[in-house]
Amino acid sequence: MQSGKFITIEGGEGAGKSTNISFIKKNLEQYGFEVVLTREPGGTPLSERLRKMLLDKNETKMSSDTELLLMFAARSQHLTEVILPAIQQGKWVVCDRFTDATYAYQGGGRGIAFERIAVLEDWVQGGMRPDMTIIFDLPIDVGLSRAGSRSEPDRFEQEDIDFFMRVRNAYLERANKNPKRYAIVDAEPELHIVQQNLVQILDRLVNQS
Amino acid sequence: MQSGKFITIEGGEGAGKSTNISFIKKNLEQYGFEVVLTREPGGTPLSERLRKMLLDKNETKMSSDTELLLMFAARSQHLTEVILPAIQQGKWVVCDRFTDATYAYQGGGRGIAFERIAVLEDWVQGGMRPDMTIIFDLPIDVGLSRAGSRSEPDRFEQEDIDFFMRVRNAYLERANKNPKRYAIVDAEPELHIVQQNLVQILDRLVNQS
Repeated sequence: MQSGKFITIEGGEGAGKSTNISFIKKNLEQYGFEVVLTREPGGTPLSERLRKMLLDKNETKMSSDTELLLMFAARSQHLTEVILPAIQQGKWVVCDRFTDATYAYQGGGRGIAFERIAVLEDWVQGGMRPDMTIIFDLPIDVGLSRAGSRSEPDRFEQEDIDFFMRVRNAYLERANKNPKRYAIVDAEPELHIVQQNLVQILDRLVNQS
Repeated sequence: MQSGKFITIEGGEGAGKSTNISFIKKNLEQYGFEVVLTREPGGTPLSERLRKMLLDKNETKMSSDTELLLMFAARSQHLTEVILPAIQQGKWVVCDRFTDATYAYQGGGRGIAFERIAVLEDWVQGGMRPDMTIIFDLPIDVGLSRAGSRSEPDRFEQEDIDFFMRVRNAYLERANKNPKRYAIVDAEPELHIVQQNLVQILDRLVNQS
């Protein structure tokens, strides 16, 4: 049986990831693929328990290193229990955030050196990397004003503008270094324009496989 | 101000760690040291939350890699929040289990290669190692029969004899490779004999510092 593909969806606050992930799933299903939607941190009962700790804004003393190790602990379980088995069964896995978010938030945002993150990435994933990473990109002020109307901010959402600028820059830096794996989608225009763009990106990915 | 020392206490089930840790604390206080007792996994509110997950026997799906990453996440927080500040303030820290337990349980017990554990040890601790590690050693059958009368077994305690033999062998192997840092205490004799031995070990450590 042919293996499935692994697509990760990235982007800062208010970039419209949730809406577009459903669209991506439907689009891929039209090609006849079985699609598994999942998310990080999370995706298994244990990893969701870790997600709660990671987002808990009462966890004021959590060090950046601890945060990073917990992210990779959740990811390790998610890979073993959900992502890798699904791909082996020929399913396409679409994951809301993955290791690029770790480089962006714990690297760019918190200031952990990319090289230190890479050690854990290799330790947990070996050579496993997404087949495609779609980054929904948006100016920080637009994203925050879109996201602002939602529920109370979690431990990450309560960070300041500078933090989110560093997150965005880290995403763009990674994408620019490896344009083959990354697609940057301008998330500012109206939804139907964003989704026309997605249709083309997915079509290229499907036809290269 | 002179830095304190970091002493870790190791050993399998039923080896009498708890009783002897209190004895070690009192003994060191007689030299005039301020002593902090702590434990792993645990020692901070966040790390104790992780301990609960790690010992929870309902967590049947936790992979060995996830378990190892969670151990080091708990350790990272414990070092930053408790152990390193105390040592810098001149206190002596006595910790019930530390990274040797990781080599013994996740390495020897679960079968993760020591080299893989060493990558995370270096990542989390840099060059930081205990000044002394005291291993309470006991034949497995004696230890298990001593421990058996206690409360319901946790996720580790419910492992089989072979698991605990591998744990013991890993401890002894590490101690034999570095006899300067490790003291193996035969935990089988009566308590007053074990504690005579401890008095001598601690006296050597204090007088070399």
